[in-house]
Parts: sequence; C-alpha cells; structure tokens
Amino acid sequence: MNEFAQGAAWMAGDILPIAEARISVLDWGLTHSDITYDVVPVWNGAFFRLPDYLERFRQSVDTLKLTIPQTDAEITEILHRIVAASGLREAYVAMVASRGVPLIPGSRDPRDCGNHFYAWVIPYVHVIKPEVADRGCHLWISKGSRRIPEDSVNPRAKNYHWGDFTTGLLEAKERGFDTTALLDHHGNVTEGPGFNVFALKGDTVVTSDHGVLHGLTRRTVIELCQARDLTVETRPLPLSELLEADEVFLSTSSGGAVPVARVDDRVFSNDAPGPVAKTLRADYFALLERGEMSQPVRY
Amino acid sequence: MNEFAQGAAWMAGDILPIAEARISVLDWGLTHSDITYDVVPVWNGAFFRLPDYLERFRQSVDTLKLTIPQTDAEITEILHRIVAASGLREAYVAMVASRGVPLIPGSRDPRDCGNHFYAWVIPYVHVIKPEVADRGCHLWISKGSRRIPEDSVNPRAKNYHWGDFTTGLLEAKERGFDTTALLDHHGNVTEGPGFNVFALKGDTVVTSDHGVLHGLTRRTVIELCQARDLTVETRPLPLSELLEADEVFLSTSSGGAVPVARVDDRVFSNDAPGPVAKTLRADYFALLERGEMSQPVRY
Ligand SMILES: Cc1ncc(COP(=O)(O)O)c(C=O)c1O
Ligand SMILES: Cc1ncc(COP(=O)(O)O)c(C=O)c1O
Repeated sequence: MNEFAQGAAWMAGDILPIAEARISVLDWGLTHSDITYDVVPVWNGAFFRLPDYLERFRQSVDTLKLTIPQTDAEITEILHRIVAASGLREAYVAMVASRGVPLIPGSRDPRDCGNHFYAWVIPYVHVIKPEVADRGCHLWISKGSRRIPEDSVNPRAKNYHWGDFTTGLLEAKERGFDTTALLDHHGNVTEGPGFNVFALKGDTVVTSDHGVLHGLTRRTVIELCQARDLTVETRPLPLSELLEADEVFLSTSSGGAVPVARVDDRVFSNDAPGPVAKTLRADYFALLERGEMSQPVRY
Repeated sequence: MNEFAQGAAWMAGDILPIAEARISVLDWGLTHSDITYDVVPVWNGAFFRLPDYLERFRQSVDTLKLTIPQTDAEITEILHRIVAASGLREAYVAMVASRGVPLIPGSRDPRDCGNHFYAWVIPYVHVIKPEVADRGCHLWISKGSRRIPEDSVNPRAKNYHWGDFTTGLLEAKERGFDTTALLDHHGNVTEGPGFNVFALKGDTVVTSDHGVLHGLTRRTVIELCQARDLTVETRPLPLSELLEADEVFLSTSSGGAVPVARVDDRVFSNDAPGPVAKTLRADYFALLERGEMSQPVRY
C-alpha cells in the first residue's frame, strides 16, 4: 500500500504523507487567517485549467502582499510531484501561501513574518455529494449569517475566512438542508461554502459579480452556457429573483455544476434537477473527460 | 537550557516545545478558520483573572457549537503545567478549541469533525511595544478596511478572522503608524488587532459595546475608571467623537492600558500620553503586581 494513497503534501522541500502535514500553531495563517490558497481539480489523471488556477492563486498572493519564492513553473512541478506520489487519478489539489511566523518573536508587524508556500493533494472532494446532485440539492438561505462584505475581506482573494459560511451551514444542517448560500447586506444572493450560485429564467442565466470569489467553475459554466446559446448576466442577484427562477444551480471545482431542487421552501422542477442544470452538469464532466483544457499529470 | 524556555504547548496529552506544536493542514481550524481561543496573561508568576478568561473561552466554544472533553478544572491544570514547564514568569497563554478534521474523509458537514482542544504558552507579548506606549501610540484609522460585521462573524466569540485587521495594519505600517483601528459600516470606531479603544472627554469615558470583543482588559479598565470616579459609557463611538476626545487609549491583555498620542493627523496632549491614560496604565500594572485578582502558577 502506497503511504501517500490517502494524500500527500509538499512542505519546505519534502514530500510527506498527508497525515504528517502540519503547520505551527503560531503561524499567522492560522492565528490571523492570514493565508490564501487555491484548489485545482485533477480528473482522469489530468489537471483541469491549471494555468487559470495558477493565475488566480498568484493574484490572491499579491492581494495579500505575501511573497513566496516559488515561480509558477516551480509550483507546477510541485503539484505534479505530489499527485504522482499519491497515484490519485481524481484529486483535490491545494496550493497555499501563508504569512508564517514572526521572525522577530512577539512582533505584530506582518512584514516581520516568514511567508511560505506549501501544497497538498487528497482524493477528489465533492462539496455536494453526487447522489445529492442527482436528486437536486436542497439549499438553505441563511437567515442568521450574512456574507462578509468586500470591504472587510476581499472575497476574490481565495481565503479561509469561513465563519459566516459555517454559521449558515450549521443552520442548514439543523433544518435538514444539504448546504447554505448567504445573502449580502443588501439582500442579494452571494455564494456558499465552496460554490457560486446561478439562477436561470427563460434563456438568461444570472450569477453575482460581487461579494463572491470569481470561481473558475463559474467561468467554465458561463462558457458552457454561452456554448448553449444562453445569455449570461453577471450582476447582483436579488433573493426574490432566485426564488422566482426556472432553475437554480451551483458551480464548484469540487463537483462541477450542481442542480438545486429546493431553495428554502420553494421547490423547482417538480423537486428534481432542471433540464438546463442537468445538461450543464453533463457538459462540465464531458469537457473534463475530453481533456481539451487539461494537462496530464506526470505520474 | 530548558527546552521549553521559548514556549511550550499541550497537545493531545503531551507537552511539547512550542516549535514542535503543529496542527494538520486539513484541520478546519485552519482551512475554515473554524476555531476559537482565549489568551490569559501571566504576570509576576501568576495568572490574572483566570476564571474570567475561562468563562469567556467556554462561551466562545458554545457559540461556535464546538464540543471539547476538557472541563474548566482540566484546562486550568493544563495551563499550570505548560507555564510551569516553560518556567516563564511573564507569559502569554493561549487556550484553543478547533473544529478539527472530518472523521469521514471528504465530508463538508461540520458535525462530522473531531473537535479538539490544545494550549500553548510563549513569553509575554506586548501588542504595542512598551517604548511605543511610553511615547504614546500612533493609531491609524483604516480607510480601506471595515470591521467584519457582527451578523457575518460574531466578534464576541474570540476568533482568528483577522483579514480586516491585517489590511488595516499594512495600511498603517506603510504610513509609519504603529497600529490600526477599524470603523464599522456606520462610521463608528470598533477595535484593532488585539485591543479595544477608549475615548475620554471631561470625566466621561466611552468605548464601543458592539462590533467588538468584550475584552477582559476592557472590563478591568472600566473598573479602574470607575475607581477613579470617571463615568463609563459603553455605546457606539462615532469617529468624530474619537477625534474630538481629550485622550484616547487602548486596552489589551497583551500590554494593559496603552495611551494614544495620535489618531491619523490629529495629535493629543502635545503628542504625548495623556494624564488619565498614564494613570490607568499604572493602575493596571499595579493591580497585576498586587495579585488580588491573580492565581500563582504552580511551578
Ligand atoms: C467561497 C467560494 N466561492 C466559490 C467557489 C467556487 O470556485 P471554483 O469554481 O474556482 O472552485 C469556492 C471554491 O472553493 C469558494 O470557496
Ligand atoms: C479583536 C480583539 N479585540 C479586543 C481584544 C482585547 O481583549 P482582551 O482585553 O480580553 O485581551 C483582543 C485581544 O486579543 C482582540 O483580539
């Protein structure tokens, strides 16, 4: 049995089994959530859209004013090495940059910290389980928790500030829902723990342009919608519009396009995935299988 | 040389040198900042107000719906053991409860995680260096970053969601200021990275009641103000009121009461600590020295 089959990590030049990958309890990545990351999927033994994920990661690193020595080429090499070590053909691959520990003990100046990069891989994660996607996800709009506003934490720099999502998720689970999406402070639908949200009405698809991560699966789904002659609008999405939509679906690197059958007590498409959402879900996995935008892992 | 002199940690029953205290890169305490903590000061070989810190920690744990097996008596015992191991007489002692890792790999349900407790100690930290407190702190009101609102992340459950503070801190440091305080979305002064903020006008002291951690040093400073016959009001503190105050000061377990000499381009008390702030700072350390509210560490 391969010791990396449950996952592997690259830390400070070493490849470790995932269970041994740890960071200091003093790392500001933990104690200040002063950290950014990205997650690229591996499907069928190939990275999907890797250059796009690397580009977004680099933007996040710059937004947080972190400095890491690794070039994109070096990160690519590291990601290939850990996935190859794991032998996984379907995987969830994370690259992470953290502020690190103050090099002057006790300093509270972010510029005194030793920034660092690490990466890890685990078996592919479905944010929404496939059987839930197949019957249509039940989405709870959190009543108690609003999405952290853009002028508090920039959602386009992918981050671990998930307290708002966790509150919503616990609310959702207590009520028997599968997951949650959050409103902003103006009542518009933003995103959920790990996904963007779309509403379809007629031939038009709407997804929020603000208060959200610009998901790369959101980008892929937008492209797939356009290829199906749907009009896509990226703009604020009021809750009322979501509830009056013909179909609702989610997008995530951890599961692709996911049909929603219920939002709160509103039931869509006879409590089943809608036809467009089902088509987009199939289109997404067909694209992954075709490998046009993929780069084979060097196992 | 004691291997714990730089700090010690208690993790899963073991006492470790601080440099070896690490948590999994998959722990939701890190990847979702789904974690809470508290920090009690040790001064002169004694814990200050330990029961109050334990009570607040327990409330934070409950707010996040975390479950840890340790009782308050067991936590107390652990804290005594790590401080004793370190031999430190002035220390910063953290107790932490984290959501942990999903026990069902790949699960995105917080209820599937193995919550856990750990604790660590390092030499006493001054959030504002004593020499800065002596000349009067230069406080920058962040222009770009607003405090995360209460309905996104509850600030009374002490947390590691510091992205808003870090943005403000980087802004402050670029401009040569010592630290930052953030406004809420209504223009009221909230708090800074590790401290509460007070404004004195005449005989009245104002500090925010909302959008902030209810700091235990805030509580101590309120008591010290009352002992000096000052009136204390806990209510929203508009920025204009802060700028028009006679004196401004900060409170933190990591340094006590800290006089502020400048807020942005406004200069207080001839660019020096004000008399009331200086008195409160002295009162705070005198209280610590007297040990009335302290409990000696069992070295
Ligand atoms: C908050 C948030 N929104 C949206 C997404 C979806 O982004 P992507 O499609 O790039 O995975 C994620 C992915 O993890 C996320 O964490
Ligand atoms: C955000 C925040 N506000 C205020 C404080 C001050 O609280 P206390 O006096 O209990 O240390 C802290 C302490 O770390 C803090 O992190």
